[in-house]
Amino acid sequence: MAGLSNFFAPREREFFDLFEEAGHNIERAGKLIERMFSDWPDSVEVARDLVVCEHEGDRITHDIIYKLNQTFVTPIDREDIYALASALDDVVDYIEEAGDFLGLYRIEAPTQHAIQLAAIIAEAGTAIAAAIPRLRDFRDIHHYTVEVNRLENEGDRVLREALASLFQAGIDPMMVIRWKDIYERLEQATDATEKTANILEGILIKNT
Amino acid sequence: MAGLSNFFAPREREFFDLFEEAGHNIERAGKLIERMFSDWPDSVEVARDLVVCEHEGDRITHDIIYKLNQTFVTPIDREDIYALASALDDVVDYIEEAGDFLGLYRIEAPTQHAIQLAAIIAEAGTAIAAAIPRLRDFRDIHHYTVEVNRLENEGDRVLREALASLFQAGIDPMMVIRWKDIYERLEQATDATEKTANILEGILIKNT
Amino acid sequence: MAGLSNFFAPREREFFDLFEEAGHNIERAGKLIERMFSDWPDSVEVARDLVVCEHEGDRITHDIIYKLNQTFVTPIDREDIYALASALDDVVDYIEEAGDFLGLYRIEAPTQHAIQLAAIIAEAGTAIAAAIPRLRDFRDIHHYTVEVNRLENEGDRVLREALASLFQAGIDPMMVIRWKDIYERLEQATDATEKTANILEGILIKNT
Repeated sequence: MAGLSNFFAPREREFFDLFEEAGHNIERAGKLIERMFSDWPDSVEVARDLVVCEHEGDRITHDIIYKLNQTFVTPIDREDIYALASALDDVVDYIEEAGDFLGLYRIEAPTQHAIQLAAIIAEAGTAIAAAIPRLRDFRDIHHYTVEVNRLENEGDRVLREALASLFQAGIDPMMVIRWKDIYERLEQATDATEKTANILEGILIKNT
Repeated sequence: MAGLSNFFAPREREFFDLFEEAGHNIERAGKLIERMFSDWPDSVEVARDLVVCEHEGDRITHDIIYKLNQTFVTPIDREDIYALASALDDVVDYIEEAGDFLGLYRIEAPTQHAIQLAAIIAEAGTAIAAAIPRLRDFRDIHHYTVEVNRLENEGDRVLREALASLFQAGIDPMMVIRWKDIYERLEQATDATEKTANILEGILIKNT
Repeated sequence: MAGLSNFFAPREREFFDLFEEAGHNIERAGKLIERMFSDWPDSVEVARDLVVCEHEGDRITHDIIYKLNQTFVTPIDREDIYALASALDDVVDYIEEAGDFLGLYRIEAPTQHAIQLAAIIAEAGTAIAAAIPRLRDFRDIHHYTVEVNRLENEGDRVLREALASLFQAGIDPMMVIRWKDIYERLEQATDATEKTANILEGILIKNT
């Protein structure tokens, strides 16, 4: 099994290098958003690191698509490369937007639900970063996709609680508008990690 | 014409079986959401049936994608199978979310517009469930797609009325926030039925 | 170079004709939304022209997809034709929705930020309309895609300013709800012009 990665020519292996970079970038974005929410408002400067992370994600996505458009024979199906690159890009985009809203909406203190959701995203990011290198020789990643699915379900549960408490009588409408937006981005980030896991699993089923 | 479905090998026919299941599931979800809105708040238990429906939809979608990833020669183009499965899945997801909001947002009474929109979704679901079996031997479905398009236009008209009355002076902002969200999900469900119909029609044009 | 467009058979050239139509339609929609916002509320009748534009966009998209489903050999990759048609369609849809909200939400006067965003969309529409004819003989469009990307970044900057001023203390929640929706559609329109530019560039990279 160990030698299987040599099956691919050097130019083909570059796709896997780029996907690994994207995985590391997601793990980093997840850790930043977790810290940003848990320490807010004492984490204003983390927002800058998140923007850097998002630009880095854009760069990686661009490199993958550019390489895809220039490559005739790809190590995995073209549409899977495209779908995986897009899903990985979405994760970081949504994370960055959620963090950005804290400053833009002048949030004074994060809710407990938001802190929990950010921690869930960080865990999912770590699972994805761990799964991606296994793509290189099509090793089983079931352990990681189960974990990401579990986290997404956990995120759904927290989100429902968060919305329910937001809509209890007596809440300020402006608070509801702000937090609904932030929760939505955090949910989109979690959904995007699940989508990424599903695409990874689909690629493995096709290729083994 | 009647014997045409034998054109496909048994393993290929399973795709059509799964799409038919998805069609029945959408019809059922449509009927549930119609009842849920028309009888609310005396239909709390319908929400549970809708969640079951949504899980069933997830299971069917998963089965289709899994089968697709394992099948080399498919009876219709791979990307059409994927697009159709996704669109059918979206319909039920949006329906379930719209229903879920009734409880989550502590809605006391549904608006007339919401009841009308839910009834339109139920009709569109029935039309889609009737169209899908015709895919099996590529029989004309124009009658059904015209119907789904008509319903989507009707839904747009009702939605615009609903939004206009929501934004009239003197409305409570919290009501606007709640109902905008619910209307949006109902609209997304209707849009997804139209997208489904367009994909079905595209498949027929390609294959006849 | 001038004779290169003859490389394609007449039936294949029809795809380029339709994309050029879509480009002109986007340019027109952009000019209408710019006028609608800058002159509001003295531009109620422009809304009707925008609806016509949106219907025209639907017609062009339908024609492209129909032709795609009936054509076996296409001058550019099928998935690129589909992606480009969808992205072009999205631009006009979002523009039309943004304009529609002015009346539906009973907006009395547009914000300076909204006027700026509409002007940015108009510029991006002009750049896309100028780039599309170059697809016909795969001429370089880098100048135009750089311009669209610049406009999208500029739009992001204006949007962030707009949201920040919307969430300053003391704003009426109903105003925030209305304008957040309108800004969101204007942002989606700008994002869709960038997506269009990226798809155009991808097609050129593949084909040159």
